[in-house]
Amino acid sequence: MKFTKTTAAAALLLALPSAGFAQEAEAVDTLPFILTTVLFLMGGFLVFWMAAGFAMLEAGLVRSKNVTMQLIKNVALFSLASIFYYLIGYNLMYPLGTWSIEGVLSGVWGPGVLEAVGVTADAADDIGYASTGSDFFFQLMFCAATASIVSGTVAERVKLWPFLIFTVILTSIIYPLQASWKWGGGFLDEAGFLDFAGSTVVHSVGGWAALTGALILGPRIGKYKDGRTVPMPGSNLTLATLGTFILWLGWFGFNGGSQLAMGTVGDVADVSRIFSNTNTAAAGGAIAALILTQILYKKPDLTMVLNGALAGLVSITAEPLTPSLGAATLIGMVGGVIVVFAVPFLDKLKIDDVVGAIPVHLLAGIWGTIAVCFTNGDASLGTQLYAIVVVGIFTVVASAVVWFILKAVMGIRVTEEDEINGLDMAELGMEAYPEFSKG
Amino acid sequence: MKFTKTTAAAALLLALPSAGFAQEAEAVDTLPFILTTVLFLMGGFLVFWMAAGFAMLEAGLVRSKNVTMQLIKNVALFSLASIFYYLIGYNLMYPLGTWSIEGVLSGVWGPGVLEAVGVTADAADDIGYASTGSDFFFQLMFCAATASIVSGTVAERVKLWPFLIFTVILTSIIYPLQASWKWGGGFLDEAGFLDFAGSTVVHSVGGWAALTGALILGPRIGKYKDGRTVPMPGSNLTLATLGTFILWLGWFGFNGGSQLAMGTVGDVADVSRIFSNTNTAAAGGAIAALILTQILYKKPDLTMVLNGALAGLVSITAEPLTPSLGAATLIGMVGGVIVVFAVPFLDKLKIDDVVGAIPVHLLAGIWGTIAVCFTNGDASLGTQLYAIVVVGIFTVVASAVVWFILKAVMGIRVTEEDEINGLDMAELGMEAYPEFSKG
Amino acid sequence: MKFTKTTAAAALLLALPSAGFAQEAEAVDTLPFILTTVLFLMGGFLVFWMAAGFAMLEAGLVRSKNVTMQLIKNVALFSLASIFYYLIGYNLMYPLGTWSIEGVLSGVWGPGVLEAVGVTADAADDIGYASTGSDFFFQLMFCAATASIVSGTVAERVKLWPFLIFTVILTSIIYPLQASWKWGGGFLDEAGFLDFAGSTVVHSVGGWAALTGALILGPRIGKYKDGRTVPMPGSNLTLATLGTFILWLGWFGFNGGSQLAMGTVGDVADVSRIFSNTNTAAAGGAIAALILTQILYKKPDLTMVLNGALAGLVSITAEPLTPSLGAATLIGMVGGVIVVFAVPFLDKLKIDDVVGAIPVHLLAGIWGTIAVCFTNGDASLGTQLYAIVVVGIFTVVASAVVWFILKAVMGIRVTEEDEINGLDMAELGMEAYPEFSKG
Repeated sequence: MKFTKTTAAAALLLALPSAGFAQEAEAVDTLPFILTTVLFLMGGFLVFWMAAGFAMLEAGLVRSKNVTMQLIKNVALFSLASIFYYLIGYNLMYPLGTWSIEGVLSGVWGPGVLEAVGVTADAADDIGYASTGSDFFFQLMFCAATASIVSGTVAERVKLWPFLIFTVILTSIIYPLQASWKWGGGFLDEAGFLDFAGSTVVHSVGGWAALTGALILGPRIGKYKDGRTVPMPGSNLTLATLGTFILWLGWFGFNGGSQLAMGTVGDVADVSRIFSNTNTAAAGGAIAALILTQILYKKPDLTMVLNGALAGLVSITAEPLTPSLGAATLIGMVGGVIVVFAVPFLDKLKIDDVVGAIPVHLLAGIWGTIAVCFTNGDASLGTQLYAIVVVGIFTVVASAVVWFILKAVMGIRVTEEDEINGLDMAELGMEAYPEFSKG
Repeated sequence: MKFTKTTAAAALLLALPSAGFAQEAEAVDTLPFILTTVLFLMGGFLVFWMAAGFAMLEAGLVRSKNVTMQLIKNVALFSLASIFYYLIGYNLMYPLGTWSIEGVLSGVWGPGVLEAVGVTADAADDIGYASTGSDFFFQLMFCAATASIVSGTVAERVKLWPFLIFTVILTSIIYPLQASWKWGGGFLDEAGFLDFAGSTVVHSVGGWAALTGALILGPRIGKYKDGRTVPMPGSNLTLATLGTFILWLGWFGFNGGSQLAMGTVGDVADVSRIFSNTNTAAAGGAIAALILTQILYKKPDLTMVLNGALAGLVSITAEPLTPSLGAATLIGMVGGVIVVFAVPFLDKLKIDDVVGAIPVHLLAGIWGTIAVCFTNGDASLGTQLYAIVVVGIFTVVASAVVWFILKAVMGIRVTEEDEINGLDMAELGMEAYPEFSKG
Repeated sequence: MKFTKTTAAAALLLALPSAGFAQEAEAVDTLPFILTTVLFLMGGFLVFWMAAGFAMLEAGLVRSKNVTMQLIKNVALFSLASIFYYLIGYNLMYPLGTWSIEGVLSGVWGPGVLEAVGVTADAADDIGYASTGSDFFFQLMFCAATASIVSGTVAERVKLWPFLIFTVILTSIIYPLQASWKWGGGFLDEAGFLDFAGSTVVHSVGGWAALTGALILGPRIGKYKDGRTVPMPGSNLTLATLGTFILWLGWFGFNGGSQLAMGTVGDVADVSRIFSNTNTAAAGGAIAALILTQILYKKPDLTMVLNGALAGLVSITAEPLTPSLGAATLIGMVGGVIVVFAVPFLDKLKIDDVVGAIPVHLLAGIWGTIAVCFTNGDASLGTQLYAIVVVGIFTVVASAVVWFILKAVMGIRVTEEDEINGLDMAELGMEAYPEFSKG
C-alpha cells in the first residue's frame, strides 16, 4: 500500500502552481493530506474493531470450557501486536529511507513513527500522503488482524504463553518482513504483484501460519475417531454471528482505507466503489454457502454461511476496486463455495481447524489473489502465483521454525487432562459462563 | 432523499465563478462532492451496522430453540437485499434519466451503479452531489433495513425459504417502487410529502409488510390461550439490549446521512442538529416507556424500554432536522408511549409480533410522519396522511399477494411439531447454545 | 476542551487574507469549521458507543440474577443524561456569554444549543470552531460516560429509582459544574490545570461518585465473610470482553475528538498521534495486567486483563498528545499495574466495587492526571494535584449529600431478600436468561 507515497509526492510537485499563487494554492493542497489522514483514522478504527470480531467469532465457535482462554488470547494478541509492531515491525516493513539495519533500529523507540505535535505542512513526513501517525495506526491494525487469524485455528489445545510468543514473532518479524516485499516497495512489488488490501499479504499469511500451527499441534482429542469426524459444535452461535457482522463492518475500513487516498474526486469515488464491492462480495459468499449447504445437506448451515461471508470478503480483498458489482458478487460467491468444500476436506486430512480460518483466510485468500487477473488488466497470473508461492513458503518455513523451537523449549500443547477438562479451568481457573450448567 | 440532486447541481452552476478563475475554483468546488461522499460512506457503514443490531435484538427476543434460525435469516436477508437491490431495486428506484423499462433494464448488471475507476470531476455522474457508488451503498442499507424489520415479527414460525423469497421481492420491487414515489422524485414527492429519512418510506413499509405476514401466518402455537396472552420471554436480554444500542448508533448514519450533503457550513451544522435530535428522541422514548411501565405495571419493563428507544428513533426519522431538542424529545416520548400501549393491544387482537416491530416501526412510523407538521412549516397534514395511506395500501396489498402465493405454492409456516421442537433443530439441525441446558 | 475556542477564533482572524481576496478565502476558511464538526460527530458517535460498552461490561461482570437490572440502568442512565445534560448541564458547563443565572436559564429549553437550520457562516455561533450542535453532541457523551462509571460499582444492590435520581443530579449539576472549572474556562483552567480528555474531569469524577456510593451502600451480602473475600464471578465473560473492546474503540473518539480541531495539517496529525497513543496505552495496560497476574497468581486473570486495558486508556486520557509511543505504552502499563494491586486492596478495605470501576477510573485517572507532567512541559505537578484534590473533594461531598438524602427519603438499597433472590425478579419480574438453568 505504502508504495504510492513517492508517486503521489511526485505528482503533487508537478501539480503545484507557479510561485505567484503559492499562498492560495497551499491552503488547497493540504486538503488531500488531511482527508487521507481522516481515511486512515476511520479505516483504522474500523479495522481495530475487527479484533473484537475475531474475539466474538472464536469465542462463539469454541466449546464453553475454552471460551475464557480464547478471549484472553484475543485481547493479549492484539495488545502484543500493538506493542511489537511499533517496536520492531513497522520499521522493518518500511525502513526509514533505505534498507539497512540502522534504518530499522533508528525507528525503534525513536522518532520515526509519529510526527511532532502540531506539525506544519513543511515539516510533515510526507505532505503528499498522510500523517505518519495515521499510517502507523492503520498499518498496525492489518498486522494485528494477521495474528487474530491464527488464534482461531489452534484454539482449544495450544498453551497460552507459547501462542503469545508466536504472536510476538509473527507481528514483529514474519508479517512485516513479507509485507515489505509488496507494501514496502520490495521485490514482489517490483515484479508487478498486485494485492490491494492483502488477500495474500494479510490473509494467506495468517492462514499459512495457522495451518502450520495446526499440523504441528495435531487435532484435538477425539476429533477424528474410527475414520470419522466428530462434530464439536460452537457454544454460542449468536456471538459467532455478531463476530461476523463486526468483521464485515471492519472490512469497509480494511479495503476502503487501502485506497490510501481520499483527497480527490477520483479517490473518494474509488473508495465508494470499494465499499460497494466489498459488501456485495460478502453477500455473494454468504448466499453461495447458504444455497450450497441446502443442496448438499438439505439443511442450511449457519456456520458455513458466516464463513461464506468472510470468505467472500477475503476473496475481494486483493482487488476490491476494479471489479463491477456483478464481478465482485461472483468473486465472493466462489469464496463461499470454497469454504463449503474445504471445511470437510480439511477434516478428511485430519487437519483440525477449530473455526474454519484456513478455508476462509488461506484458500479464499489464494483465490482472491488469482481473481485479480479477471478484472485488473495490469495483473499477470504468473506473478500472482509466484507471489502466492513465495509468501507461502516463507511463512510456512518461518512459522514452523518458531513453532518447533517453542515445542522443544516449553511445549506448545496442554496436557491431555487439561484439554479434556477445558483450558479455562486448567490454565486460568476461571469460567466464561460459571452459572450455566452444561448440557 | 435523492431529489435534491438536481437542485444542488443547479445551485452549483449558479455558484461557479467566471472563467478566469476556473482552475482555482474547481479545486474548491469538488469539496462538497468529496465530503458528501464521505457522509454517505460513513452513514452507510453505520446503517450497515444496524443489520447486526436487528440480528442481536431478534436473537435476544426469540426463545433459544429458534435463535439459530433467526440468525441465519438475518444474515441471509441482508445478503439477498445487497444483491437484489443492486440487480433490480436501485435502478427501479432511480431509473436512469427517465421512467422507462429501458432505463431500468440498462442499469441491471450494467454500468449504472458505479462510476469508472479514478473518475474525474468532469466525468462524475453528478459532481454537485456525491459519487454514485457512495449513494448506492447508502441507499442499499435503507432497503436492507426495511427487510430486517419484517423478520422479527414473523419469527419462530415462518419457514426459511419462503421468508427469503419474500425478502427478495420486498427488496427488489416493493420497497424500491414505493420509495421512488418519494425519493425517486415521484408523485408523492411532487405532492409535497415530507419524509426526511423514512418514517414512512422505510419503517412503516417494513411494519406493514410485517403486519401482513403476521396476519397471514397467524400467531405462534400457545400464544393466545383461553382468552389470555401467554408470555414467551426472550432468551437473552443482554443481546437484545446490545442490539438496541447498535441500532441507536446506526441511526446517526440513517438520519444524519439523509441530509444528503455535508460540504457547507449549513449542511454540516444541519447534520449536527440531526445527530442531536436523533439521540434525544431515542432517550425520550426510552424514558417514557420506563416511567409508563413503572406506573402501569409497578415494574419497569426492559423490553418496553428498548422498544421505547427504538420507537423514539423511528418517530424522529421523518423530520430530524427542524425540531428543537425539546420538541425532538417530546416526539420521541410519544413514540415510547405508543409502544407501551400498542404491544398489549396487538395481543388483544391476537396479532403475534414476536419482537414488537409493528408498534415500533409501523405505529411510531405513522406518528413520526404526522409529527413533521409540528415543526416543519412546509408540511401539510393532509399530504402526510395521504402518503401514509397510499404507501400503506400498496405495501399491504403487494405483501399479501406475495405471502399468499408463497403459501399456496410452498407453504409459509413450519409444521406444528417443528414449531414446538423449535426451528433450529427441525429446519437447521443446529442449536445456538448446544451446551446449555434449558430451564 | 472548549477553552481553545477563543484562541482558535483569534488565530483565524489573524489568518484572514486581505479584503481583496475575501470571496475565495471564505470558501477555504469554512473548511476547519466543517472538518472539526465532522470530528465531533465521528468522535461523538464513537463515545456514544461506549454506553453500549459499559452496558456489556457490567452485564457480563454481574451475576445472572442481576443482569436485566444492570441493563435497564445503563439504558436509562444514558437516556436521562441525554435529557438532563441538555436541559441543565450543557448550559451550566458553558454559560452563554457570562457566568450568570440568566446565562444558564436562557439556555434551558432555549435557543442556545443548536444553530438555526441551514445556518450560514456569518450566523454560526463560532465559525472558528465547529457547529454548536456537534459540540453539544460530543460533550453530552462525556457527561453520560461519567454516569456509566457509577453504575458498575454500585451494581447488584442499589435500587433502580434512587440510582436514576442520582444520575440526574450527577449529569445535570455535579459533572457540569466541575467540568466548567476546567473546560468552561473556570478557575482550574486559569490555574494551568491540564486534562486533555478527562482523566480527572470525567473518569475520576465517575470514580469518586462510585466510591462514595459504594461506601454509603456497603458491600453485597456475603461478599466479606470471616475476614476473607468471597469471589462472585461475573456471569458472562464474553460480553465483558466485548464491552471492553467497545470501550477501547470508543476511546479513539473520546481522546481523538478532544483535540477539538481537525482542519489543519497540524491538527489532523495531532489526532493521529492521539489515536496511536490511546491504542498503545490500552495495550500496555492489558499486557501489564497479564504478566503481573501470571507472576502473582500463576494464572493470568481475564477480568484483570480487561480492566488493565481500560486502566491504560484512562491513564492516557489526561495527555494523549504529547507522549511518544514508548511513553504512552509505559503510562498505560502503570495503569494496568494499579488495577492488579488496587482490586484486592479495595476488598481488604471492604469496599465492594462490583466491576472494578474505582481502580480503573478513579485510581488510574489520578495516575493519568499526574503523568501529564512527564511529557508535557506546561504541566505543573502542584497544579495537577491541586485539581485532583479540589475535584475529588467536591465530587465526594456533593455525591454524599445526594446519596444520603436519597437514603433518608426513599432508601437506596434493596431488601436483603431481594438482593439474595436477585434484583431482576424482585424489582423487575424479568430474567435476562430465563431458559438457562443456573449451576
